[in-house]
Amino acid sequence: MERRQFLQIPGPTNIPDRILRSLSKPLINHRGPEFEKLVADCINGLKETYRTDNDILMFPSSGSGVLESAIVNLLSPGDTIVAVSLGVFSERMAQIAENHGVNVIRIKKEWKEAVKPEEIKQILNEDKEKNIKAVCLPHNETTTGITNNIENISQVMKESGHPAVLIVDAVSSLACLPLETDLWGIDVVVSASQKGFMLPPGLGIVSLSEKAWQFVKRSTMPKWYWDYKAVKSKMLEFQFPYTPATTLLYGLKESLDILSEEGIENVWARHELMAQAVRNAVKSMGLELLADEENASNTVTAIALPKEINYKELANLLREDYGVVIGGGLQNLKGKIFRIGHLGSLNKLDVYAVMGAVEMALYQLGYEVKLGTAAKAVADTFLKA
Amino acid sequence: MERRQFLQIPGPTNIPDRILRSLSKPLINHRGPEFEKLVADCINGLKETYRTDNDILMFPSSGSGVLESAIVNLLSPGDTIVAVSLGVFSERMAQIAENHGVNVIRIKKEWKEAVKPEEIKQILNEDKEKNIKAVCLPHNETTTGITNNIENISQVMKESGHPAVLIVDAVSSLACLPLETDLWGIDVVVSASQKGFMLPPGLGIVSLSEKAWQFVKRSTMPKWYWDYKAVKSKMLEFQFPYTPATTLLYGLKESLDILSEEGIENVWARHELMAQAVRNAVKSMGLELLADEENASNTVTAIALPKEINYKELANLLREDYGVVIGGGLQNLKGKIFRIGHLGSLNKLDVYAVMGAVEMALYQLGYEVKLGTAAKAVADTFLKA
Amino acid sequence: MERRQFLQIPGPTNIPDRILRSLSKPLINHRGPEFEKLVADCINGLKETYRTDNDILMFPSSGSGVLESAIVNLLSPGDTIVAVSLGVFSERMAQIAENHGVNVIRIKKEWKEAVKPEEIKQILNEDKEKNIKAVCLPHNETTTGITNNIENISQVMKESGHPAVLIVDAVSSLACLPLETDLWGIDVVVSASQKGFMLPPGLGIVSLSEKAWQFVKRSTMPKWYWDYKAVKSKMLEFQFPYTPATTLLYGLKESLDILSEEGIENVWARHELMAQAVRNAVKSMGLELLADEENASNTVTAIALPKEINYKELANLLREDYGVVIGGGLQNLKGKIFRIGHLGSLNKLDVYAVMGAVEMALYQLGYEVKLGTAAKAVADTFLKA
Amino acid sequence: MERRQFLQIPGPTNIPDRILRSLSKPLINHRGPEFEKLVADCINGLKETYRTDNDILMFPSSGSGVLESAIVNLLSPGDTIVAVSLGVFSERMAQIAENHGVNVIRIKKEWKEAVKPEEIKQILNEDKEKNIKAVCLPHNETTTGITNNIENISQVMKESGHPAVLIVDAVSSLACLPLETDLWGIDVVVSASQKGFMLPPGLGIVSLSEKAWQFVKRSTMPKWYWDYKAVKSKMLEFQFPYTPATTLLYGLKESLDILSEEGIENVWARHELMAQAVRNAVKSMGLELLADEENASNTVTAIALPKEINYKELANLLREDYGVVIGGGLQNLKGKIFRIGHLGSLNKLDVYAVMGAVEMALYQLGYEVKLGTAAKAVADTFLKA
Repeated sequence: MERRQFLQIPGPTNIPDRILRSLSKPLINHRGPEFEKLVADCINGLKETYRTDNDILMFPSSGSGVLESAIVNLLSPGDTIVAVSLGVFSERMAQIAENHGVNVIRIKKEWKEAVKPEEIKQILNEDKEKNIKAVCLPHNETTTGITNNIENISQVMKESGHPAVLIVDAVSSLACLPLETDLWGIDVVVSASQKGFMLPPGLGIVSLSEKAWQFVKRSTMPKWYWDYKAVKSKMLEFQFPYTPATTLLYGLKESLDILSEEGIENVWARHELMAQAVRNAVKSMGLELLADEENASNTVTAIALPKEINYKELANLLREDYGVVIGGGLQNLKGKIFRIGHLGSLNKLDVYAVMGAVEMALYQLGYEVKLGTAAKAVADTFLKA
Repeated sequence: MERRQFLQIPGPTNIPDRILRSLSKPLINHRGPEFEKLVADCINGLKETYRTDNDILMFPSSGSGVLESAIVNLLSPGDTIVAVSLGVFSERMAQIAENHGVNVIRIKKEWKEAVKPEEIKQILNEDKEKNIKAVCLPHNETTTGITNNIENISQVMKESGHPAVLIVDAVSSLACLPLETDLWGIDVVVSASQKGFMLPPGLGIVSLSEKAWQFVKRSTMPKWYWDYKAVKSKMLEFQFPYTPATTLLYGLKESLDILSEEGIENVWARHELMAQAVRNAVKSMGLELLADEENASNTVTAIALPKEINYKELANLLREDYGVVIGGGLQNLKGKIFRIGHLGSLNKLDVYAVMGAVEMALYQLGYEVKLGTAAKAVADTFLKA
Repeated sequence: MERRQFLQIPGPTNIPDRILRSLSKPLINHRGPEFEKLVADCINGLKETYRTDNDILMFPSSGSGVLESAIVNLLSPGDTIVAVSLGVFSERMAQIAENHGVNVIRIKKEWKEAVKPEEIKQILNEDKEKNIKAVCLPHNETTTGITNNIENISQVMKESGHPAVLIVDAVSSLACLPLETDLWGIDVVVSASQKGFMLPPGLGIVSLSEKAWQFVKRSTMPKWYWDYKAVKSKMLEFQFPYTPATTLLYGLKESLDILSEEGIENVWARHELMAQAVRNAVKSMGLELLADEENASNTVTAIALPKEINYKELANLLREDYGVVIGGGLQNLKGKIFRIGHLGSLNKLDVYAVMGAVEMALYQLGYEVKLGTAAKAVADTFLKA
Repeated sequence: MERRQFLQIPGPTNIPDRILRSLSKPLINHRGPEFEKLVADCINGLKETYRTDNDILMFPSSGSGVLESAIVNLLSPGDTIVAVSLGVFSERMAQIAENHGVNVIRIKKEWKEAVKPEEIKQILNEDKEKNIKAVCLPHNETTTGITNNIENISQVMKESGHPAVLIVDAVSSLACLPLETDLWGIDVVVSASQKGFMLPPGLGIVSLSEKAWQFVKRSTMPKWYWDYKAVKSKMLEFQFPYTPATTLLYGLKESLDILSEEGIENVWARHELMAQAVRNAVKSMGLELLADEENASNTVTAIALPKEINYKELANLLREDYGVVIGGGLQNLKGKIFRIGHLGSLNKLDVYAVMGAVEMALYQLGYEVKLGTAAKAVADTFLKA
């Protein structure tokens, strides 16, 4: 029957009605006074969400595009970077850099581990000639549902005295997980509209520290669309060098209002509680989490598929019988895990319902589980916390 | 946080997105060709939902208004009717009739019982002079969550050979519970937009058999807005005698499409399954149903409040912690019961979540229940049926 | 091609985007705290628009329904009223009263005239026994496009010392034409959602003075849906005796905000300017206004059809070639006039375009007019005022 | 007062209500079956609009991004191209190429001229060693309102036997002006969502001939986001290599339906008629067109500012008094011209109203014009054509 789905992929996420309505506003002139006010409001709200006074730039693009933008703006062909590779999206960053002629020192982790701050520290310490220009890693890797400890990594980088910039992919963590751009001193923070901001895809966002701008000045990488200097010079007047995605700015304004009404710390706390409930439900059903709980993401959980369960069957059953849309394993995790996104507009009953649907679907496919188990674990998490 | 509520009062009901969007269409001329097509489509779809070839009239009004319309169009001052009174809304019908100078023979039932067909039969049989002009009763009484057996009542009326018309308030049953206007031979069926049709309130609907029209012709009751003859003469040309609620017709068209895509028998079956899950969850938690299960409504369930639970506290907790909106007891049931609507746009996970919320809220308020109980009962209903 | 129409019938009117979006909000509980706030905001805004401290009641109904409500609530069978009849909608009021057993003294005017205050004065003066209970008339008659001078009529009524109440149908004038409920001392003011409020039809509104409430107390007319006492007792708690049209209250809130942002006096002035432009364009093209300009309505203009022009052809051409929807003559004016509504959400370019379309369509149908004439007249009105 | 603006910049354009509503649909999984169907429908519709069987790729980006994509996918550093430069957007293409290390042979035209096919022919003929890899030019240059004759240019390129590919920027012409991708043999056609498709910005589109794909294979330009091979391999399964702009695909589906209902030839004819009306109105008021009428664009008209008129004052007056938003001169045309976009969702009365507003605003600012002049010229165009 006709019903809005529970969109529990690790992004795009469920969009609140208030944002959906804002997307149907007629367009305004992107060079007029109303538009300037809209952009100014968005930038102010983004700075609060990013916890930063750094410059913030926006692009009509997906989040991956902004990852590329960071590479082509901060680096030059032949530069060397450290890239942590622990899933599809972190490996993508390394790959983008290589496509542009950058030498990449990969810290390869198993696809269920987080990187240890010491691993980065060691590489930087060994780089006596300070050839390494940047350390690139994701705050949260949605392939595996692990979260890297950016605070500590930033700390060891500072302690090392190494001049490399820190570039963080926060696409699946911003406005979900605690992230302190200025307090932690992150030079480049990349995000996008379709996760914690609860918007459709199509808007990429990046913050740049003063140090990052020094790198931008020296970069010789060819570019045009992604050119930070050109974008910044326009955004100083609340404009864009090419036609902006006005509709998404309407939505962003609404999203920032919603986040501000809840309070960003409350948003973080809610994500943590929801994630605990998901993990507790998973464990209560005898399922296995892919990642160590210590590094488990509070925005997406990867779960080992019981060997008797076929992913396609599970996903189809969930979608058709329950209206729940989940994600599967990517690349070498295909068929081995399923993933549940629990980020953005999500409350207690969403988690309660989704984990119940997972339990019922597994039961229908022959997995042995006592009905009601997931619900009990979720309720215990909410009520006995 | 910002999220659409689970609106589990016994109507208005949750509105599907597709219908919500249709409500934001600009207006058209209610005397132009587009409008005629819209009305024709609505009438055709309503006839399928009503299972009738009878005339169907629409009013810009609430459902209660259409109840009054049936009284003032079919009766004359001084007429006598039988009215079954077993809750606020059935008593309302009797009251409306009395306001208009009609003598009402009430069949009063306890506010948890259904009427027995024999009770009606007996009264009709005793009316040797055939003074009784109409039998009025609700298909479903939302005050108590009971459903009257219209099929059998219609049958005994036919068998009695009594000439009274049968007027059924189907506001909270149409497009939810099996109702066969023509097969069962119901003369007047009153419904409204905000329940099974999943629309905002503001559109009243009524079907009228040939026999009902005979009564209309003889009626001397003063009227203007509700005048069936005036409305019919205009609706023959797909128009209205006064400005129609065009926006709700946009929504009705969408609603009828949705119902038709699911298939009305499937809609009925879904309502039955959802209701069973609700009742099983209620019983599993040791709560008491107000109505006999035999007559229990498949659109709303009334549940006795455990004595340690205050209704206001329960309702507030459900709304604020879980986004679930329930109904309380009306009049002499105030503070004694709470009611859960399960009609309209509702699927398995809605029931799963709502009953879980009820369990968690009761638990928080000190009611003894093992967490996970409701979920197990709901899941058992869906999977072991 | 796909384009929103210019809906220039005399109501419903064009709905601003901001209101359209508000109509797609999900429903809330009509007995919950959010709803109470919504109703309170609407009542406050309505009082500002009505320029009154009187009670304001709302009904899920068309405007005609609220006209009936005034009759059945203030009068009793056998009562006598004066009703001014000068078009379909004022005659309707007289008819409704007669349907309910009221004796109607009609002041019949030609369907292009306004009533003169002295005509009312004379009848009241002749009523030595004070049998007349009410004077009923429209502020604005959309059949003919004339406006009655309510201020003067109210004045002569006061001077006459006659105890009759003054009941004004302001459906097509409120929030368009100057109307001072309290200053002028109007006892009952009926309006509806679909004209000056720029909303879909389906919400009827009425204000009642203290004197009007005295009449309500004495009324013996049978009623239920329209019962002012029942509605008032509920609305004191911001509730309704039956399910309210919540969606239209969302829209009304938005409408009242829009009116308040513009300022009601500015709204009145804008309507006057637009109407002058329409009339000047009409005259410049050699067409004849139905009504005397002295009494010409600032919300709708009725124009004599040139004898060579067929109404249907004109209306179809306007709709199909230009997307402009106009109204025709009603009853004995059918085929003799066409009507242009210029009320609600309407600005200079709307009038400019609509009058241009009328000129072009007339030209296409063989009427002799120099192209550009209407535009010049409209522009002159705006720029040389 | 509250009213939707006439957005008459040369894009983004006015969005039909039907498309606006589609943008508020909740998101779906971009890897699920519903999404595949959506993409397939869009591709089919785009092929009809492009008049091509070539591959079509889409990007979450502005149109300028797709211009860059054509450069980095078809060329290699050190390659040589011919770029026609006759305004900001055609010069931009040359600039993008140079940013990426391409040698650009510019055909510089005055900013009001179109390029002559023979100019291109001559350069290609002189390139005996066939070093030129591509000829890049806009179909329509919005800076100046001129249209290049792509059909003839394509013809001379074929006749020359030169192997260069033809890359056409059709951002402001597709779905407005006649463009025959296959019939004329255009290798690369770049477009975007916010002009003829009547959508918000944020979706870039490109078609690629077999010959173009040969160039793609040989390109050594570094790239990732814009990589045609990667995008194509995903789009073969109706997917994307990164998160797509789902919301704009909802809108695109609706847009393609609207275009198909009108018929693309009718869309072209309508744009021609609207443009003629604009130009006739301009000339009738004694204003001067920037471009030769022979090459005048049917999507945007640039008009010389009378020397007594200040652009800012004109634009502000039009926006504030009439709700009309126009464009100004760019770069060296700043303060010398104003521009009116007349593309996308635009009908007769829009042009009538907008040109009337221009006339009234100019009049208010002291320009000598007889009121009604523009309307007469527009009406003459429509009725005496």
